[in-house]
Amino acid sequence: MLLSKLFTKTLREGPKDEVAKNASLLVRAGYVDKLAAGIYSYLPLGILVVSNLQKIVREELGKVGAQEIFMPALQPKENWLKTGRWETMDNLYKVTDSEGREFALGPTHEEVVVPLVQKFASSYRDLPLSVYQFQSKFRMELRSKSGLLRGREFLMKDMYSFHKSEDEMRPFYEKMKEVYSQIFKRAGLGEITRITFASGGAFSEFSHEFQAETPAGEDTIYICESCDQAVNREIFKEKMKCPACKSDSGAYREAKAIEVGNIFELKTKFSDAFGMTYKDETGIEQPVIMGCYGIGIGRLMGTIVEALSDEKGIIWPEEVSPFDIHLVGLTAGAKVFYEYYTKKGMRVLYDDRDVSAGEKFADAELMGIPKRLVISGKTLKEEKIEWKDRTTGTITYEKSPL
Amino acid sequence: MLLSKLFTKTLREGPKDEVAKNASLLVRAGYVDKLAAGIYSYLPLGILVVSNLQKIVREELGKVGAQEIFMPALQPKENWLKTGRWETMDNLYKVTDSEGREFALGPTHEEVVVPLVQKFASSYRDLPLSVYQFQSKFRMELRSKSGLLRGREFLMKDMYSFHKSEDEMRPFYEKMKEVYSQIFKRAGLGEITRITFASGGAFSEFSHEFQAETPAGEDTIYICESCDQAVNREIFKEKMKCPACKSDSGAYREAKAIEVGNIFELKTKFSDAFGMTYKDETGIEQPVIMGCYGIGIGRLMGTIVEALSDEKGIIWPEEVSPFDIHLVGLTAGAKVFYEYYTKKGMRVLYDDRDVSAGEKFADAELMGIPKRLVISGKTLKEEKIEWKDRTTGTITYEKSPL
Repeated sequence: MLLSKLFTKTLREGPKDEVAKNASLLVRAGYVDKLAAGIYSYLPLGILVVSNLQKIVREELGKVGAQEIFMPALQPKENWLKTGRWETMDNLYKVTDSEGREFALGPTHEEVVVPLVQKFASSYRDLPLSVYQFQSKFRMELRSKSGLLRGREFLMKDMYSFHKSEDEMRPFYEKMKEVYSQIFKRAGLGEITRITFASGGAFSEFSHEFQAETPAGEDTIYICESCDQAVNREIFKEKMKCPACKSDSGAYREAKAIEVGNIFELKTKFSDAFGMTYKDETGIEQPVIMGCYGIGIGRLMGTIVEALSDEKGIIWPEEVSPFDIHLVGLTAGAKVFYEYYTKKGMRVLYDDRDVSAGEKFADAELMGIPKRLVISGKTLKEEKIEWKDRTTGTITYEKSPL
Repeated sequence: MLLSKLFTKTLREGPKDEVAKNASLLVRAGYVDKLAAGIYSYLPLGILVVSNLQKIVREELGKVGAQEIFMPALQPKENWLKTGRWETMDNLYKVTDSEGREFALGPTHEEVVVPLVQKFASSYRDLPLSVYQFQSKFRMELRSKSGLLRGREFLMKDMYSFHKSEDEMRPFYEKMKEVYSQIFKRAGLGEITRITFASGGAFSEFSHEFQAETPAGEDTIYICESCDQAVNREIFKEKMKCPACKSDSGAYREAKAIEVGNIFELKTKFSDAFGMTYKDETGIEQPVIMGCYGIGIGRLMGTIVEALSDEKGIIWPEEVSPFDIHLVGLTAGAKVFYEYYTKKGMRVLYDDRDVSAGEKFADAELMGIPKRLVISGKTLKEEKIEWKDRTTGTITYEKSPL
């Protein structure tokens, strides 16, 4: 892509109304635009990041056979009455049409996915199965100052699994821990993301969160010194035995973290609400056991920025970056390098703008593409090219391939 | 994909509450599921169709340099007050949060895109530019019986262009007619889709619709016998001169049609509302001229089904079809053909289920993949393979490639 053609522009300063580092940098660099508190538009560069994250998630979920669907945001009140959440769920936006029909704007999709899957899964032969979607969710946050970390409208991947029994579900749930760990690893957060034991709510002992350690985190976790898994403050007790490795050393390190994903057993809470059962091998109706697995795609993008950026700007992990190479052209001769690397299958952002070298360098740091390639009159003359690694800042020279 | 792994199942009969052919067939074949009137979930096969349509649209819009973004559904009331549409737009869903903030659920995005683009385009150097998105739109339809043709929540591609002058906009607008014609051609509707002159509203003489001729259409158009372009009933007059080819023969053919796309000049209606101007070469502020270009992606999917299906089921055009080949396996030996064609880069749906041949054939007709490949004990023995063309019904035999 030619940077001169991109309609967005970088800003020297973060917007005054953005207190969160993630949104401030993402707005400055032209990835997102704020429409209202907690409500953002994704701009062309942001779309590329989102689609890279979706690709990672699709590939990893494909490994457990999860099937992609897309469910509506407008959800009939009746479905929410069945689960009892029409009145009890905080933060539910409600909409009434001019004939008095009421809808919830979906913050989550149990009320849709259970009656949907129920239509297709009624026998032991149909189970287990799992479905997921990428979708805009809505949550009535009264204050929303954390940029992409806590939105009123936000991009989620939500997934639901359906099983014949808890015994059958358990290995699937454990497998999902690995799948999620792999997703966050590919998204560049592997080293700072801890599997964290959290409250299982009314119906199971624990749920599991994936908490990315960073000072901007709203959550507090206690990381077990023995196994590196963690316990959320909500269930942490001094000197408790580690629920992951069972160590009773009581040695924990407190840290701030952002929840980038969570998985939890729903048991029969929602299948019961809709009377979803299956016929077992002997023809007897049995309850369907469910699990639920969420990743906030927008939040994940915000967390990467929050955790990995430096004072100069964003630093994208390779698989997340909108481009492989940020080509800073300081001479018209740079164009052939754009064509060369594009032809080799690299995704190249070519800064062909008529602005100063300093501005191009600053924008390259701000936009955060992992590899910067500089082509100037000087490098051309010396038949060299200059690479700079965005993470380490290391500059290396190579013989020009052209 | 193995059909035995797909969680959806076909239905013998259309649901009783679906009067529209498009929804009835799409539900029966497992492409969509109805949550409420005018509100559908997309199932795995439906997701494949939508993503094929998106691919066509992205490729064609890329040719005019349009840039993809993604804007929110929750839109602050203030933006809608500025354009005057908070009170005047029919069918606007409105949401109020517990602190009294009001939002519209976007049925269209002028109220978001203008202030967004305004931040980046303030000089003649920044124009022209165009942006588009794929997004769920919301419209408070009180009755909604047309399946995917008229939804309360529906998938749209909307695009907006920004220009320095009407003179500059005109060739772009004409180019968009070609782009849209090409999109509908690739989507399989080329032969039945007519560029149709419609009302331009308060601010221009005409807008242009793309109307797909089919008896189920809610619109009535008059097709000029000379040029094959059409006039919408809302502006048609007996014996009028054709606004497209200027023929005054007065020879028109009346037809029912579904509007699958529309393009219209917005002139300065929305740029004025937000005070969006640009500085021209001499430093003088000038009004920004806008155009707007919509395609209902869900509606397009519904129209294809409505217009091209037969009594046995859906018939997908090649580029829209979720798979290239529907492999009906009547013997375990079919598996190697699944692997063979998949390896060749074909998208193959392999019916490996343990059901009767008749059921497999009926499902293949219903699901509508253009090419059916039958592998049976008999064909294997004769070292042949059997192809059936879904559109023509023609059966041909070939020497087996294996």
